[in-house]
Amino acid sequence: MNAMGATGVPEVVTVGLGERSYHILIGKGLIERAGTEIAARLPGVRAAIVTDGNVAAAWLPALTDSLSKAGIETVAITLPPGEKTKSFEHLEQVVDGVLGARLERRDAVIALGGGVIGDLTGFAAGIVRRGMNFVQVPTSLLAQVDSSVGGKTGINTPRGKNLVGVFMQPKLVIADTGTLDTLSEREFRAGYAEVAKYGLIDRPDFFAWLEANWQEVFSGGPARTRAIAVSCQAKADVVARDEFETGDRALLNLGHTFGHALEAATAYDSARLVHGEGVAIGMALAHRFSARMNLASLDDAERVERHLRDVGLPWRMSDVPGELPGAERLLEYISQDKKVSRGALTFILTRGIGQSFIAKDVPASEVLSFLRENLL
Amino acid sequence: MNAMGATGVPEVVTVGLGERSYHILIGKGLIERAGTEIAARLPGVRAAIVTDGNVAAAWLPALTDSLSKAGIETVAITLPPGEKTKSFEHLEQVVDGVLGARLERRDAVIALGGGVIGDLTGFAAGIVRRGMNFVQVPTSLLAQVDSSVGGKTGINTPRGKNLVGVFMQPKLVIADTGTLDTLSEREFRAGYAEVAKYGLIDRPDFFAWLEANWQEVFSGGPARTRAIAVSCQAKADVVARDEFETGDRALLNLGHTFGHALEAATAYDSARLVHGEGVAIGMALAHRFSARMNLASLDDAERVERHLRDVGLPWRMSDVPGELPGAERLLEYISQDKKVSRGALTFILTRGIGQSFIAKDVPASEVLSFLRENLL
Repeated sequence: MNAMGATGVPEVVTVGLGERSYHILIGKGLIERAGTEIAARLPGVRAAIVTDGNVAAAWLPALTDSLSKAGIETVAITLPPGEKTKSFEHLEQVVDGVLGARLERRDAVIALGGGVIGDLTGFAAGIVRRGMNFVQVPTSLLAQVDSSVGGKTGINTPRGKNLVGVFMQPKLVIADTGTLDTLSEREFRAGYAEVAKYGLIDRPDFFAWLEANWQEVFSGGPARTRAIAVSCQAKADVVARDEFETGDRALLNLGHTFGHALEAATAYDSARLVHGEGVAIGMALAHRFSARMNLASLDDAERVERHLRDVGLPWRMSDVPGELPGAERLLEYISQDKKVSRGALTFILTRGIGQSFIAKDVPASEVLSFLRENLL
Repeated sequence: MNAMGATGVPEVVTVGLGERSYHILIGKGLIERAGTEIAARLPGVRAAIVTDGNVAAAWLPALTDSLSKAGIETVAITLPPGEKTKSFEHLEQVVDGVLGARLERRDAVIALGGGVIGDLTGFAAGIVRRGMNFVQVPTSLLAQVDSSVGGKTGINTPRGKNLVGVFMQPKLVIADTGTLDTLSEREFRAGYAEVAKYGLIDRPDFFAWLEANWQEVFSGGPARTRAIAVSCQAKADVVARDEFETGDRALLNLGHTFGHALEAATAYDSARLVHGEGVAIGMALAHRFSARMNLASLDDAERVERHLRDVGLPWRMSDVPGELPGAERLLEYISQDKKVSRGALTFILTRGIGQSFIAKDVPASEVLSFLRENLL
């Protein structure tokens, strides 16, 4: 069995959005084929590759080479790594770089990197000349299973994270699973929280499969490619039902309301908590809170906690290093979350593994008591 | 006959864009009704009003009052007047103001002002929370007949004008023709160039009607409301065929290729040339160039020139005060224009009054000779 799985060809997920539909190609070594795949879909294109210093060192030469062999001229725009890059300042830098290369609307902007690069680059591609072609080459697990589907792009401002951006669908996503070999264990695990999330939202069989096969997903065999493909398909199915996030798409926020509050409470200090870790704890809390509300069984909550613990993810608030604020303050962070609509508390709760739903008007008093109990 | 025309109700133009369709209301005194009209379409909304210092002095109290009476809470964001406001810096300021007011996705951002305010505000509304509700209250003739239809928003960068932005359709446009009474003669005339343009594109009867009725359009009678409504309808018809500017919409650039080159050649110095004046000269040149290419009769070119002269608009390059660069330099400005596609010169030319078409691959040598002759 070769690196791409038994068939030797990449897995292809189609994100079905009418005239904005596109393919996600998933497999090992795909960066070498990137030029051919892009040229086949966007003939005659020129491209700007946006990346960060770390990713550039590892993958930019291979990508540039692949594009060059397919006759695609490129310029590279290299930014500092890290969440701070998702700013107006760097947005302006990317926009200026793309315009400075005299690219036209039918040319392409390619994001080579993780979620930060993908979000920022997609936003830039969405606003230069009111929208150019956008291609994603995600190099982190989180970016491959999350930001490669759904078209959400954006930057942070002092008022909060991801509050400014556009919906911008890529023309193609090339997820080379080989790039994940260079991630730290911690970063890979954080991305895995989102993989598990898709099982918990509405794919109980996938969650059970992960319980049995997670070691191979981590070690990089064909199960990794499979897990990424199923995750992308799961997200694509939700997004196809609700491209502009007016309804069902909120399910993707399972674990995110508690998770965001914890991220805010730790001042987004990645030494203490990264996004995927917040989501992991948030998912465990969402299941436990659902059990407390008599919606789901405690057994299911414990099963979720066990799996997160098995793979080495944090799963309870006491797993966050350092001190957390009190329940009242955490509730304030929850109320400030952008998923709050007109003051009512909206949560993604569940009736069991793979049976999540959108719960509106969740009483703040219940959340407060729950947080108090779980902070002990 | 009252100020809104014989019927006493505003004219309503529907911009038909499927689920993004919206109404343009046109009539005198409409700002007083703005609150009711907005509340009827966006119940429960809160709003940020973005405006500039000049317009705020004239119309902000009336608009705020009208919204308040309809139960709509507002905050005002007032920017400096002038083209320089269309910058990343002020975009960030508007975004921060809207977020600071804690407005949500279903709330509204209202542009009260001319084209600069409309373009900047629409862009901000399109990116805050990946798209909020957008309402336009255009107060210049140019904004009422041009930027109120089509959803193009944007800012300028050092690389050029309007190179960064989004397509963002408003939920409602309220064009109060009374606001035009406070414009300078020169500003009204510049806006009128775009009104005449719609006749020249594909409505020969409208152009003939303008030749007969332009005095009443200028003086503010019912003909003014009518001219604005026909202009909006004309643009809406083109935009409905090509929302994202991939084809037919280029017709709206009649006069703009020559016009933009003249604006660039005068360094966007409004003391010498404003946009509408550039378009006026550009339209006259497009007709004369079409005659030179044996596409249209010289009589039609002269008829266009006569009407522009009658209303007091410039119509030839020698009408631009101060010195212009030579033909070679003007051609360079034309080649740099964003409507140039892969190096080929694309112009909107015509076969006669109201018979414009998109001409691709226009030989640069012909344009150069034409410019040389007309610079004499």
